[in-house]
Formats: sequence, structure tokens, C-alpha cells
Amino acid sequence: MATIGIDLGGTKLLGAIVRDGAVETELKRPTRTGGPEAIVAEIAELVGELGGARHVGVGAPGQVRPADGVVLGAPNLPGWDRPVPLADLLRAALRGSEVRVDNDVNVATLAEHRHGAAVDHPDVLGVFVGTGVGGGLVLHGKVRQGRSGLAGEIGHVVVQPNGRECGCGLHGHLEAYAGRGAMEAEARRRHAAGEETRLVTLAGEGRMKSGVFGKALDAGDPVAVSLLDEAVEALGIGIAGAVMLLDIELVVVGGGVTEKLGDTFVGRIEEAVRSRLFASSPVRLLPAVLGDHAGVVGAAALFG
Amino acid sequence: MATIGIDLGGTKLLGAIVRDGAVETELKRPTRTGGPEAIVAEIAELVGELGGARHVGVGAPGQVRPADGVVLGAPNLPGWDRPVPLADLLRAALRGSEVRVDNDVNVATLAEHRHGAAVDHPDVLGVFVGTGVGGGLVLHGKVRQGRSGLAGEIGHVVVQPNGRECGCGLHGHLEAYAGRGAMEAEARRRHAAGEETRLVTLAGEGRMKSGVFGKALDAGDPVAVSLLDEAVEALGIGIAGAVMLLDIELVVVGGGVTEKLGDTFVGRIEEAVRSRLFASSPVRLLPAVLGDHAGVVGAAALFG
Repeated sequence: MATIGIDLGGTKLLGAIVRDGAVETELKRPTRTGGPEAIVAEIAELVGELGGARHVGVGAPGQVRPADGVVLGAPNLPGWDRPVPLADLLRAALRGSEVRVDNDVNVATLAEHRHGAAVDHPDVLGVFVGTGVGGGLVLHGKVRQGRSGLAGEIGHVVVQPNGRECGCGLHGHLEAYAGRGAMEAEARRRHAAGEETRLVTLAGEGRMKSGVFGKALDAGDPVAVSLLDEAVEALGIGIAGAVMLLDIELVVVGGGVTEKLGDTFVGRIEEAVRSRLFASSPVRLLPAVLGDHAGVVGAAALFG
Repeated sequence: MATIGIDLGGTKLLGAIVRDGAVETELKRPTRTGGPEAIVAEIAELVGELGGARHVGVGAPGQVRPADGVVLGAPNLPGWDRPVPLADLLRAALRGSEVRVDNDVNVATLAEHRHGAAVDHPDVLGVFVGTGVGGGLVLHGKVRQGRSGLAGEIGHVVVQPNGRECGCGLHGHLEAYAGRGAMEAEARRRHAAGEETRLVTLAGEGRMKSGVFGKALDAGDPVAVSLLDEAVEALGIGIAGAVMLLDIELVVVGGGVTEKLGDTFVGRIEEAVRSRLFASSPVRLLPAVLGDHAGVVGAAALFG
């Protein structure tokens, strides 16, 4: 049976009819500002345009309490700083549809588990390297939610004691080394301190996109090389810790930075992980395969 | 119904009749050397002396594959360097008893979950600080085994990139900072390098027991204080990472060092963990309560 999957992002809203993990029809538009009401109305319209469905799954940014689909906080959505009962609001707006909501990264990991790089693996850690570093955990075929809906958040695991300040205010987290945003901030700091780097020349005043890092790396830019080395080391430490603790065999690595830097990047992280584990560890790291569709496919997969 | 729980240690073998998590009768003796056969015979004798039982659970040191009760390797038991089908051997020796085997630390964590400090908590991480640092994980009321029976092994999570060498040969692991053995080695290194410390005076040529650390700390010995600070920091980093990744609410801390240093030690670790987590984290650290009985109680609990 077809299900509608919704990927609610900070800048864009994606909706799709999904059947057996495949996207049949999809619609995309900019996410409305104006707080929860405006977004609920936009999702309801999108579901209507897709023809409606009995089951509507939503991947939402931020901290989600999956038991009742309440978004506890979503820093990327203006006006969502207080808990929003998204599942209830959507149920009311969609009369007749069953609605499930989970965190966007959990949903993307579930998608890779059911229909992507991790098919046939009961356990998988998903690590998504983009502006930040997100993570999701599937154990015995089910998304691990945890007490507060934060399970899998590998971006906020300490990898360098007393290291760089993270966007969250704490120190030495993985995200502070491997998130694109943190790498940009560090590149601009080094540039301001007198180190020359193409990263700043290429990005100018604009955002230092993943493609900019790709180009600077190809040109052997020393700052870009050093930042990427640090990112790979941080990912190696953080992922190796998770693999050791959970004794899992497969890690799927995705996100915008990973897509831009490609399989070599994933290979380097795999090496960094393995060097910190016993030689007998069977762990493998694979690139995510669902790309931009992971959100809608995973949201639909919330219905089994 | 009564079950027999067996705690197979490197130096001592403990057997007990356990009913509803309480020890009714217990027997203790030195673990026989002479390899798997000698130990299987010794366990069978112990079970006989306890009157036999339909269900016999065993907690064994080292890496255990719980599906079939094979001990893949147990460095603390001489002659166990190749896989030993302990469950099968015991079934043959005990004719008529059902036998289950799991790792000793997993079993101790299960005991605290069912009958100790973590009763009523579906998820718990057990951290046991003794000669080494062991860990076990109960998620949704069940021991997490992992692919190779190594899940929960927090002692081999990196807490200091490129840090001290661990007994396993890798670098910067938690055990290399918080294990009694590693702390003793570091104390003797610093002593040999000219730092004065009561630790060496108190221990002499003998093993630097947990009590020695306790006494040196009470006297304000600078080397002991510095080693304990490092151990607490390492435990803080490693446990905070696990709590973040799994979003769990409760960590139980046990083991010989913890018993000797007491609740203050656990309190200091809790503070070190909290300082590395979001302020909203509800995590608590509690001292283990079952002490030497955790092994037999947990082994019996393998039968539910």
C-alpha cells in the first residue's frame, strides 16, 4: 500500500507517495515561515495535492518525542522553540489519516536500513555529515529512540577532550570538527589569523559549501587538507567508540558533505575507524545510497 | 523456581542457588588451572554439591558468543586461548540441565537491572572499574550482545586521542586511564621517573590494590590524586559518549575500585559525565549494589 512520506527541512518541504520504498510521485516547495500553524497547513496542502493517504509519516528536524509525535525543539524552524504537538496538529488537519513523526536523521537511517545501503543488516548506525553531524541508530530492525528522542546523536559525543567549542556550547564534540558549519568557522578563523586559503577566496562572503571544500582539497590547499584530516580523525574516534560499545557491523555514512566528497571520504573514515578497533572487528562503512529521498522513504517506513 | 548461577573468574569460582534474585546457598573455591576440561569438571562438581538444578547459568570472563555459549577467548583463563564450547561441555557433564552462558560483565549488568540498583529501568549501562574496565548494556530489558558478543565494552572506547597505550595494544582507551592495572603501571612509571608517591611505598613489590589507592588518596598523595583525576575525566568522557549515543537515563557503576573508593567516586564520575552533556539530560549514576553476588545472580537471571 502507498504511504505518504514528508521530509520537513529548515528550508524545503518534500512530500512523496512511497510504495515499497520507491518514490512514485514527489512534490517540493520552500518551507513556510510563520511558525507551526503555517507549516501544518502547508503539509496538509501537500498531502492533499498528492491525493491523500491513510498513512502519513513525517521526518522533522530537531528533538522529537516519537511516542506522541511532539517536536520538543527545532532550532532550524523559526517559531518552534516551544514543544509542538505536530502529530496531533496534522491528524486534526488531515482528518482520517494516521500520522507518525520521528526525527529526520532517525528516519533517514531507517530508510537506509529498509531500502538502502543497510538492507539485510539488523543493526546500523547512520552518520550524516552536512552542516552539522547527525546520527541515527537502528538496533534489531527498530529505530532506537532513547528516553528523550535523542538516541544516535553522535555529533555531540566528545572526541577531543577540552577541544573546539561546538555549536551547542559544549567542547570537543564530533560536530565541532566534522560539521561543514564548524569547518567553515575554523577556516575563516585561520584565514583571519593570517593563513592563506582558497576556501575563503572560493566562498567569498557566501556560505562555504561542500563543493568549495571539494575544490580546495583537489587543489591541495593546506588549510582545507588540515581541516579534512581533523574531520576524518574525529569521525574515526566517534564512530569507533559507537561500534565498540554496540558491537555493530555496519555504519552508513551520508549527508551533503559526504555526497560531495564521495567514496574516498567514506574510505578514509573507515580506515580511521578500523585503526581504533581490534583487528578482528568486522565493521564496514558504506556510503548512503538514498540521497535526497532518504527523508520521505524513511518517513513512509515509520509505518513498517 | 531456584536456578544455579555460576560466576567463573580468573582466580575464583562461585556457585549459588538463586531464587527470585536472592542467593540461598553459595559455594566458593579457587578456579582450577589445567584448561577447559578441569574447569568444566569443577563446575559440574559444584553444581552437584549445590543439589543440581534444571537451569544452570554461567557468567564467564572474556568474549562469549551467547547464541551457543562458546567462549571465543578468555585471556584470564590459562589454556582458553582457543574457542571453548562451554555450554555444550557443561550440558554433557550435567546431563539433564539446561545451560546458558554469557560474559561476566553482561551478567553483572543484568543482575543490577533485574535485582539491583537499576530495577524498573528498561535501559542501563553497567560500568565495572576493577583491574580493567568492563561494561555491559541492557536495552529494553535485554542484554545487548552485539555481533561478536562484545557489546558494552566501554573500556576499549577512545577517550584520549593518541593517548596512553592500553593493555589491548591500542591507544587512548578508557581502560588505560581508569583500570587499576593501568593506574598501577602509570604510578610505577612516574615513580621510576623520580616522582615520589606513597602508592609505591604502600604497595611495595606487591600488587597495588584498590585499598592502596584509597589510603594514598586520603593522605593527599599528589600522584594518586592526579591519577584519580585522570581516571574520573576518562570515565566522564567515555560514559557521556555512551549516554549521548544511546539516550539512556541510568548508569550503574561497580567493580573492585568503585567498592573501595565508594560513593564519592561515583559522585565525581557523575559530575564529569553531566558536564559533557546537555543541561536537560536526566542521566543519573548509581553505585552497583550486588557486589560479589552480581555474577551468580545475573547468571541465574539468564533464565528470565
